[in-house]
This record gives sequence, structure tokens and C-alpha cells, in this order.
Amino acid sequence: MSDGARAGLEDLRDFIAAAFETVGMPGADARTVAALMAEADLQGSDGHGVIRLGPYIKRIRAGGVNLTPDIRVSRERAGMALIHGDNGMGHLVMKRAAELAIEKARVAGVAWVGAQWSNHAGPASLYAKMPLAHDMMGLYFAVGNANHLPPWGGLDMLLSTNPIAAAIPAGEEPPIVLDMATTVAAYGKVKAKAQRGEMMPEGWMIDREGRPLTDPKRAAEGFLLPIGGYKGYGLALVVGLIAGTLNGAAMGKDVIDFNADAASPTNTGQAIVAIDPSAFGEIDEFKAAVDQVIRDLRASERMPGVDRIRVPGERSHEIAVRQRSEGIAIAPSLMQTLDGLAKELRIAPLRTH
Amino acid sequence: MSDGARAGLEDLRDFIAAAFETVGMPGADARTVAALMAEADLQGSDGHGVIRLGPYIKRIRAGGVNLTPDIRVSRERAGMALIHGDNGMGHLVMKRAAELAIEKARVAGVAWVGAQWSNHAGPASLYAKMPLAHDMMGLYFAVGNANHLPPWGGLDMLLSTNPIAAAIPAGEEPPIVLDMATTVAAYGKVKAKAQRGEMMPEGWMIDREGRPLTDPKRAAEGFLLPIGGYKGYGLALVVGLIAGTLNGAAMGKDVIDFNADAASPTNTGQAIVAIDPSAFGEIDEFKAAVDQVIRDLRASERMPGVDRIRVPGERSHEIAVRQRSEGIAIAPSLMQTLDGLAKELRIAPLRTH
Repeated sequence: MSDGARAGLEDLRDFIAAAFETVGMPGADARTVAALMAEADLQGSDGHGVIRLGPYIKRIRAGGVNLTPDIRVSRERAGMALIHGDNGMGHLVMKRAAELAIEKARVAGVAWVGAQWSNHAGPASLYAKMPLAHDMMGLYFAVGNANHLPPWGGLDMLLSTNPIAAAIPAGEEPPIVLDMATTVAAYGKVKAKAQRGEMMPEGWMIDREGRPLTDPKRAAEGFLLPIGGYKGYGLALVVGLIAGTLNGAAMGKDVIDFNADAASPTNTGQAIVAIDPSAFGEIDEFKAAVDQVIRDLRASERMPGVDRIRVPGERSHEIAVRQRSEGIAIAPSLMQTLDGLAKELRIAPLRTH
Repeated sequence: MSDGARAGLEDLRDFIAAAFETVGMPGADARTVAALMAEADLQGSDGHGVIRLGPYIKRIRAGGVNLTPDIRVSRERAGMALIHGDNGMGHLVMKRAAELAIEKARVAGVAWVGAQWSNHAGPASLYAKMPLAHDMMGLYFAVGNANHLPPWGGLDMLLSTNPIAAAIPAGEEPPIVLDMATTVAAYGKVKAKAQRGEMMPEGWMIDREGRPLTDPKRAAEGFLLPIGGYKGYGLALVVGLIAGTLNGAAMGKDVIDFNADAASPTNTGQAIVAIDPSAFGEIDEFKAAVDQVIRDLRASERMPGVDRIRVPGERSHEIAVRQRSEGIAIAPSLMQTLDGLAKELRIAPLRTH
């Protein structure tokens, strides 16, 4: 990451917020969405950060997003709620869902909040991590916004990369944060390989005859492989049912491909679960036990050629710490796109150093 | 399955219950455990059914299981409970946990019940399926009872095959039931290959240098591979933390290898989540939507050579239907073991036809 510009976190936030305001997003909402998108870039989830600004604005201009949504609780019980996102930006919907889950878990111990009529909300880990500040665990499930996965043995792309995220607070160690697609590779990684002119490793995709597909330019001729074969197919299906169908949100055939269609409401479904460990036992004992597990894993004897054992989230935690002080790396091609966007929207370009 | 004997479901239940009673298990508990073990065999989860009778009895005789446990709710809030299993048979603990989760979900909409001081409870799907009879979904997580998985890049076996199960009610279709280890193969499958003198496919295990290990007789020299590489490692870790650490149950280094040690309490951790779809919307609409997803998947165009698309749980559902009428297949080597056990315990042998 030595080449390319770097932007301060606040500068990136301000730039994104200003861009959204020019297309009519209310200022407070623009700042909320911008803060979450910049946080995605900060932690290295750069496929879900400012790179999405252009596509989001395209969608807003096409009327595909409601800029003045009435995000509301449509169903509620002690251990759950269902949020109606009213086709607002997914970031606004899922921030609200996470806050409600935390609030409810404080009383109920565990709370599950689903969302319907939501939209793409950036990296799953953003929301799974929200309970951490309250010494709680977060689980997050979502229906992806484009189907690239057929059932096991099939050819019809009826499932998405439906991600799972989990965040677990530790004591002295950074939290454990898992954020994974249920496919071997997320589709964004395929697009990145194509952009860089690189081949994909075997195991990411297969073609319609089941042969390995390694040329990312031929991605449209094949489909993603689920992790663990039929197991990952089962996981993607279950995540789709609990994050989509359960919430009355799109799943399967009803999923709108947000790359191909910018105008139709996606009715994206997501779910967040907040779990308060202090309902199960002493919070300090829990955190110390998580620390111990992390340290035992890290201290494991290593395979030849492995320099270090990591726990999930360790790498993005390190990236976030580094980029907070050094600035957030913005790739040259992205910088060019953002400069073009700034000119078009007549806002100041993103400040970098 | 044309060779070998077949036992009726009730005969199998009675045989297992009689065996447990001879080693001091109270009659009602013996019948409960026997019913769940026989149900495992019925649905084809034969690695978790009557094949475990001998090992369970060995453990009981070694004092490793409390036959008169005080299984109790030790913590409770509206959306959760923690069950203290008092080192009783895991089947008794998790049946109680599932019943409590269902009861609480009826009010709270979603309820999470964890267990500590439990034991091996058979196939995860048994408990995930319990909410189905109440038109609810079930999720199940457990810490496996032997560590065969190192952290990604490591050599110390600190994690187990920590399974995930999910059961989702449908309308006219059979329910979706996923039951999967977070490793490519469960360790029982490796043992089965060894018994049959077969080699394993590449991808199940690697040796300490990271090379594929395909001879199941050399299994002790290597370890299982997680699904999706580091993703499966992350999943196994998260499942271990939410089913083990959260409940104050064994996880990581503290896991007792129940194959090697029959006397020490395992402090097994499991968790079940009951989700009532009627809290989120109309139950009939939900079930119809699940039916639709199942039918769309099943109707998918197929890859060459694939005769049929299945959804998770379809195969075991068919096995259960068939074995309920034809009887449960008991492999000859298992029959021999059970006959020996019957003689030793001075009970009538398992009736087969």
C-alpha cells in the first residue's frame, strides 16, 4: 500500500457525506452512512467502503432508494423485533437494528432483530461489532444483493454469498471478529482479479460443466463455489431463510441483482443478534476465558512456512489501527473515480496526503 | 443396505433402554435417551445412534456420567436461559434445553438456551428439529467432544469439529434440516473409512507438513481440514465460543477427549435457539415461502451427471420414512457388538428381522 494516496478518516467521512447531500440525502443520515462507509475502509473492507459511493448515488438517482424513509419497528416481543426499513439506505436500517438489539438484550439477555425492506449495508462486521462497545457479542446474517450460487449440483443461480459475521468481546486482546461469505470467494474478489488481470485459483468458481473456472473475465459463464461443497450450500440457504424469508424479505428468485437493476427496491433482509454474556455469567470471567482461547491459538506450534497464527479479525484490527494514524489508503483508480464524482457533484475533492 | 439385519424402532428403543437400566440409569431417563438414540439411527445418523451404546455404558461405569443429575436452570432472562446439566447424559440436558427454548420463544419470539456441564447428546439435528413440532425454527451449536482441528496454519489441536444445525419448518414440503460439522469431514467418517479399509479423498485431512493425508490408518499423524480453509477455522472457533465459553463450558485446551478419557466430566457446552416465525409475520405465509424456495431449488437446471437436486435434510427425511416401515438397518459388525453387549448385560438381544 505504499503507492496511492491516503485520506484521513474524517476527511473521508466528510467527502462521502457531502456527496450524498448533493443528491438529496438529509444531512444527519448522510453523516451516519458516511461514517459507516469510512469505517469499512478504515478496517480494510475496501470492497464495501467508499468504492460503493458511485453505485449508491446511481441507485439514489434512479429512485431505487428512499431518502426519507420511515424506519420503524413493525413487530416486537421481548426477545426479538422486526424493523421495516422502508427502502432506506441499509446502513441506517441496520444501525437502528443493532441499537435496538443491544437495548433489548440488556433486558432479555439475548435479542434477535430482523430487517425487511432494507438495502445493502456494507460489511457485515460493522454491525456484528456494534454490541462490542456494550460488552456484548454480535451475530449478523444477511441476504446478498446478487445471486451467484446455484444449489449443489444445479445451474440456476438462486442463492447469494449470504454472509455470516460474529463479534466476540475479549478482555486484553482485541475482539474476535469473523466476517465471511458462505462461498469460497466473495464475488467482489472475482471482480478485483478481473480488474488486475490476474487468474483465480482453482476452487473459487466452476463452469456449467463443473470444471474449474480460473479466468475471472469468464465469470459470467460460471458460478461461485460454496465453502465445503454441499455444506456451504446448506449454510447459504439457511442464512438466506433466517435473514430473508423469516423477515418477509427477498430470498431466492426474488433477490434483485443490484448491479443490474438500480431502480427496483431490493427488499434486502438482514438480521442481528445481540448476546449479553453477563446474562450467562460474570462478564470478566467470560472475557478472560476468551483471552485465554485467543492466546492458546496464537501460541500453537506452526506448520512449516507459517510465520504467525491469527484469530479472525486480527488483521482488520491491525489495518484499522495503522490507517487511523497513517490515513486510509485509496487506490489510484479509485481516487480517479472519486475525483470525477466530486467534479460532477460540484463538491470539493477528497483531501489526501 | 440389503445385507444385515433390520430392527423396528420400538425394539431398538427398548433394547437401548434395557441396557442403560442394567447400569443404573433410572427407567424414565433410560427411555428418553433410548428414544433419541433410536431416532438418530432411524434418520440415518448412525454414527450417533446405538453405535454409541457401548461407549456410553463404558463412560457410565467409569463414573464419567452422573446418572441422577439435578438438571436445572441456573440463569434466566426473557430471551435466554442457561441450563446446568450436572454432568447428566447430554440427551437429557439438551431435550430439557430445547423444551425450555420453545416455551420461552412462545412468549419472547426468540429464545436462546445454553447448556453447561452437559455431555455428548448425539446428532445436532435431533435438537434443532424439536421446535419444528411447534411451527418454530431451531438452531443448534455444540462443542465437539474431541479436538481434531488446529488453528489455521497451526499444529496444536485446539478446536473440535463444532457442529451447526438448523431446522426450518416448511408447509407441504419436508422441513429443511442442516446438520454439519465445521470440518470437511467429521472424525467419525475417518474412523469409518479406516474400518472399511478405504482411503480418504484429498481435502479431508492434512499431515503436519500440510500435505494431503489420505490413509485413514495414519489419522493420528494429521488433522481434519476446516470447510473453506480459514473460514471454517473461524466458524469452528465462533461456534466453540458461543456454545462453550459463553456457557462456562469446556472449550479449546479444556475439552476432554471422550475417546481417551471415560472418567472425567466433559463439561460439554451446547446451545439451542428457538425462533417463532409467527412473531415475525403470518406463519402460513412463512411456510409457503419456504416451500417456494425448496421447489425453486429442486427445479433448478442440473449439472451434467446430476440426477436430482436436494435440499438439506431431504435425504435423512427419506431414510427415516423408509426405515420406519422397513426397519432400521443394523450393520453386521454392529449387530455382533450389540449381541456381545446383551450377553454381558444379561438382557435380551436386539430383536431384528
